[in-house]
Amino acid sequence: MQNGPERRIRRIAVNTGGGDAPGLNAVIRAVTLAALHEGWEVLGIRRGYMGLLEAEVDGEPGLVNLTAHAVRGITHLGGTILGTTTRGNPFGLEVRQPDGTWGTVDRSDEIVQRFRELGIDCLVAIGGDGSLNIAHALHRKGLPVIGVPKTIDNDLRATDVTFGFQTAVEVATDAIGRLHSTAEAHQRVMIVQVMGRHTGWIALDSGMAGGADVILIPEIPYRLDRIAAKVVERDRAGRRFSIIVVAEGARPADGEPSYADATGRYGGVADAMADEIERLTGKEARTLVLGHIQRGGEPIAYDRNLSLRFGAAAVRCIRDGSLGTMVALQGGAIRAVPLEDAVGEIKRVPLDADLLTAGRQLGVSFGD
Amino acid sequence: MQNGPERRIRRIAVNTGGGDAPGLNAVIRAVTLAALHEGWEVLGIRRGYMGLLEAEVDGEPGLVNLTAHAVRGITHLGGTILGTTTRGNPFGLEVRQPDGTWGTVDRSDEIVQRFRELGIDCLVAIGGDGSLNIAHALHRKGLPVIGVPKTIDNDLRATDVTFGFQTAVEVATDAIGRLHSTAEAHQRVMIVQVMGRHTGWIALDSGMAGGADVILIPEIPYRLDRIAAKVVERDRAGRRFSIIVVAEGARPADGEPSYADATGRYGGVADAMADEIERLTGKEARTLVLGHIQRGGEPIAYDRNLSLRFGAAAVRCIRDGSLGTMVALQGGAIRAVPLEDAVGEIKRVPLDADLLTAGRQLGVSFGD
Amino acid sequence: MQNGPERRIRRIAVNTGGGDAPGLNAVIRAVTLAALHEGWEVLGIRRGYMGLLEAEVDGEPGLVNLTAHAVRGITHLGGTILGTTTRGNPFGLEVRQPDGTWGTVDRSDEIVQRFRELGIDCLVAIGGDGSLNIAHALHRKGLPVIGVPKTIDNDLRATDVTFGFQTAVEVATDAIGRLHSTAEAHQRVMIVQVMGRHTGWIALDSGMAGGADVILIPEIPYRLDRIAAKVVERDRAGRRFSIIVVAEGARPADGEPSYADATGRYGGVADAMADEIERLTGKEARTLVLGHIQRGGEPIAYDRNLSLRFGAAAVRCIRDGSLGTMVALQGGAIRAVPLEDAVGEIKRVPLDADLLTAGRQLGVSFGD
Amino acid sequence: MQNGPERRIRRIAVNTGGGDAPGLNAVIRAVTLAALHEGWEVLGIRRGYMGLLEAEVDGEPGLVNLTAHAVRGITHLGGTILGTTTRGNPFGLEVRQPDGTWGTVDRSDEIVQRFRELGIDCLVAIGGDGSLNIAHALHRKGLPVIGVPKTIDNDLRATDVTFGFQTAVEVATDAIGRLHSTAEAHQRVMIVQVMGRHTGWIALDSGMAGGADVILIPEIPYRLDRIAAKVVERDRAGRRFSIIVVAEGARPADGEPSYADATGRYGGVADAMADEIERLTGKEARTLVLGHIQRGGEPIAYDRNLSLRFGAAAVRCIRDGSLGTMVALQGGAIRAVPLEDAVGEIKRVPLDADLLTAGRQLGVSFGD
Repeated sequence: MQNGPERRIRRIAVNTGGGDAPGLNAVIRAVTLAALHEGWEVLGIRRGYMGLLEAEVDGEPGLVNLTAHAVRGITHLGGTILGTTTRGNPFGLEVRQPDGTWGTVDRSDEIVQRFRELGIDCLVAIGGDGSLNIAHALHRKGLPVIGVPKTIDNDLRATDVTFGFQTAVEVATDAIGRLHSTAEAHQRVMIVQVMGRHTGWIALDSGMAGGADVILIPEIPYRLDRIAAKVVERDRAGRRFSIIVVAEGARPADGEPSYADATGRYGGVADAMADEIERLTGKEARTLVLGHIQRGGEPIAYDRNLSLRFGAAAVRCIRDGSLGTMVALQGGAIRAVPLEDAVGEIKRVPLDADLLTAGRQLGVSFGD
Repeated sequence: MQNGPERRIRRIAVNTGGGDAPGLNAVIRAVTLAALHEGWEVLGIRRGYMGLLEAEVDGEPGLVNLTAHAVRGITHLGGTILGTTTRGNPFGLEVRQPDGTWGTVDRSDEIVQRFRELGIDCLVAIGGDGSLNIAHALHRKGLPVIGVPKTIDNDLRATDVTFGFQTAVEVATDAIGRLHSTAEAHQRVMIVQVMGRHTGWIALDSGMAGGADVILIPEIPYRLDRIAAKVVERDRAGRRFSIIVVAEGARPADGEPSYADATGRYGGVADAMADEIERLTGKEARTLVLGHIQRGGEPIAYDRNLSLRFGAAAVRCIRDGSLGTMVALQGGAIRAVPLEDAVGEIKRVPLDADLLTAGRQLGVSFGD
Repeated sequence: MQNGPERRIRRIAVNTGGGDAPGLNAVIRAVTLAALHEGWEVLGIRRGYMGLLEAEVDGEPGLVNLTAHAVRGITHLGGTILGTTTRGNPFGLEVRQPDGTWGTVDRSDEIVQRFRELGIDCLVAIGGDGSLNIAHALHRKGLPVIGVPKTIDNDLRATDVTFGFQTAVEVATDAIGRLHSTAEAHQRVMIVQVMGRHTGWIALDSGMAGGADVILIPEIPYRLDRIAAKVVERDRAGRRFSIIVVAEGARPADGEPSYADATGRYGGVADAMADEIERLTGKEARTLVLGHIQRGGEPIAYDRNLSLRFGAAAVRCIRDGSLGTMVALQGGAIRAVPLEDAVGEIKRVPLDADLLTAGRQLGVSFGD
Repeated sequence: MQNGPERRIRRIAVNTGGGDAPGLNAVIRAVTLAALHEGWEVLGIRRGYMGLLEAEVDGEPGLVNLTAHAVRGITHLGGTILGTTTRGNPFGLEVRQPDGTWGTVDRSDEIVQRFRELGIDCLVAIGGDGSLNIAHALHRKGLPVIGVPKTIDNDLRATDVTFGFQTAVEVATDAIGRLHSTAEAHQRVMIVQVMGRHTGWIALDSGMAGGADVILIPEIPYRLDRIAAKVVERDRAGRRFSIIVVAEGARPADGEPSYADATGRYGGVADAMADEIERLTGKEARTLVLGHIQRGGEPIAYDRNLSLRFGAAAVRCIRDGSLGTMVALQGGAIRAVPLEDAVGEIKRVPLDADLLTAGRQLGVSFGD
């Protein structure tokens, strides 16, 4: 992290990397308008770093001049006007070899060189753990960088919340709510698989808000007999249906059957679990794998504002020379944290998380 | 169908059968309030006909007195306050045999007898093809019946539209819209499987409203090469993503590989198709199986009003002695059609349906 | 109305006039894509006919070439990408006179001349009664025209439904639903004023779907004592709140006090009525004037599809030489009706409308 | 504030007071289930303290036994199942005098006496500043109390956020978004009045998320010429519409005309401002007063979870003997703060609030 204004800023660039998240466009808009307000120019790079390496990306110029006109009316739009990619690591870019197989090449020097040629004084890199690691590496190579954290899963340690998370929770909660009436009418067990490979934030929040009876998260290994016991207990009390919300990364306790080989496309944990629950309880079980609708579409107001704040704060960081940092929300305030501290370890749901405690008080089973 | 008021009505009953559909509660409310307005009593039967055969169903009395209080504020609620079942055919009720296997028994005479004992002058049966067939059979056994058509799939021939259909379309359209931004950002093919085992109404309406590039319906057997050609054509034009909406009952043209053995739980047609599309186009394909969120939750205003109209019309039919009929929407007006004409043959999307023609004009591929 | 293909079409134009309605962009997109599909060019005219008369409108060219790219992803967007105006009658264009006052000039000949110069073979005019009258007059001056009906109020006689109407109903129903819980918690009378200067379609549909206790429409003159009686009757039955939905054009029966001089900006009928209801019932009354949120924002799926169908049908009309007509929905089918028959008389809610009858059966008061 | 478990808890009571807020039912449900989990009984008091003083309230018993069954499926419902009142201060209860006029009587002793008779060990009072003051006074009279903060306006100093606030912001943002397309299509100034008599939290958050051009909050006195300048500046840049979001409590800077005498019912500040803006800019201005839809209806997931956490935490406070406190969210954690510190001074938007700063960077005018 460098501090203090080193030199006059004239031109900055923005890119978006990794998975889609509601709020990306709001960040782009805020960075652009706030930078124009400072008198800077703003370049948008298409599809991660692709737009720097190719003159044309998807039939459009690889670099786009981000004017006020270019970012009009995009705050509420899902996706990213710049495109994104999960295969765009310039340190190990996937390329097709002469023999037809895929290999990787390091084009990071070229990237840094292109930034210099274009007179870009700072890059605002909006991305998740992977993209921020790349950004950090570029920063160490001499390219000033500000990171903006982006992950639907809300599992970045350095920030209390990431944009897009509350929207994903809202979408999942709405789906759980719709399943509720059907589960009740049909007296079924409904198993809803939500995002969260490593952490249970979405499952916990949407499960509680959606009134789930069982919530399974990676942080609490589950036992099938405990889940079945909850379903049966409800059944006996005349509640002949149950809703189970399961994070895609939920895993069984030691000694339990594992579904680790499930591909993810076919529903993975949810479908395998449905069979077991049917066997153990004698009740019909159905599954819903929510998938990508959790990360697309309009951000809710909360995420729009968090995104706008992150984007505006990134510009203040550049202005103030606080480079090599990532903007983060901590206790309600926006702070700049060193990139090296921001990435790496993920933020898991603590076992004494307040909402989890509340869940236990309300009789929700966490499968343990 | 009988016509003319035969006798004074004192008490009617209502039940709901088959799958859940948004609007069921609105029908129940309308039947109840309109019947009370006539000075009649209204009994609700829990879980199809179960509530007639058992004193208690799910820990509650099998029969519930439907007062104005009982139906307060339920117009917008998903599910059904009476419960439903897909295994409640009194002519072939599933029961566990002494040897532990399942068999069926005919308890229809008992049902008719119970109706007589209870002094029920007419039954309002809200259900799909299966439930209406049962209702019709009871009618022939001497129990006066009015049917109210219920199917998410909109495939009942006798009515222009069924309640719940527009809500399912809205939910599916919303999901497709959310996938759009992610598909575009990631340049993927997204395959969304929606309801419709025999007909493509939901797929056609949600696909068009959601801006799908390919829509596959049971009425038009598809060819994988045509679908792939559309994806590739878009890709070459710089539109590097495509959205495919597929009805669960979509089937390939003769000579194409079939996914008929897919179980439905694992996504069936959509997942199998994703592999083929990846193979044929070299692009990443992802799937989303919408499942039960299409039939749960709040009905939109359109479905609330259609449901209220159906329920109120059913009471007018009883009052006017138009029994053995089903209420239906035809050209904007509510009519009573004989039950024997109402069930049986399903209503498929005609190949010259106006929205389908519009789709072709707009460049949507239907896989043929 | 002319029939039969007179000449080869090469270029058509589209404009949008009058008030905003959800679905306008979907019509524009459908007309454009379907016309391109025929091999025609499509010009968009900005702000009614302004774009023909001025080289630049709002800092953009007055005419825009509508390509596939130009209409991408607009199906679900509210507003109109072409802009609109309620003051753009070329037969009586409002202009500021040399002395500073406003007058009108007839520039219709100039418009027709411009169409000829530009080689425009047909105009697709999307508008309400006013705009369609203008289009009809231009048609009589020799400019081939196809009309597409547009009115939130659903009061055009020639078509069963207009696009945007169901969206307005949905928005109003959602608002009424939100008021419900507050009204109940606070035991208040809530009066919601919805659109409908001459007809009660929005009030009737949203009032029924939203569970209103009283619905007041222009077609049924109301009596304050009847409204108050309903509120008091509910109060005595322990229902200490009431929801009144009133069309902005609702009017009292003869001999009742009139609020005809209310300006509309201040809520008009709703606010005046609130005072009277408080006086007559002793209960607190609050008002909500829904205003423009009923006509903006995303169209629901129903309206998107109706709009797409209208747009595609307009192109078929041009192709088939069915000019001087308006596309309309009649009994589920799209038809072309002569423009002279389409405009003029409005479609009122008939006193035996099925939903109104259902409302009476359910105990809703219509103030009479 | 008392600490340490003084005695064994057997029975608690819950009431809700003041205005409606989305999340009230979720708090009631969480308090009930968590208390039952402790083995306690829970009594619900209807309409503030009314249910204690009257055997029957609104035709139902004044006290309701809150069982698991009684609070089923209410997490997402707006309103409050217990009812509420803004006139229920037991220290100054409004009563009609023998002469017909209204006066107040102090019935607080009676209330405390009733609590003792009923064996209620603690009251959970869910309410805003007024209700919490009453609760505090009862606490000082010897009735153990836990407060749960409730205000749509988010202006309670002791808690970072109150439940219902984010839902109000979401509803207002949605409405602003719908106005956007109409404003743009018609080139109008739209003035949206949102809640916030003393503070600008809703206006700031919904204005930013909704893309407002001008946001007026009580904390920043506005000047009409500055607002008009922003509108004109946009107009000249080809942006011929503007969206102004104004808190109902926004006030002019010294020397500016005041609308303080506006009644509130007729839109107050918004309507008066519309006339001035039209005069100063020559553009059409329209208003929308959002009113009560901001405080009714379903809470979003964020508010449901905050409500569940508050309710569960209140029970922990009782269990742990932390009485005379209010639960609050501070920096992500739930804390118990002494009631005397919790009420009184309100939390205003600080002039260096991060979102406000972001707004200025993005070019939003705050009227100063």
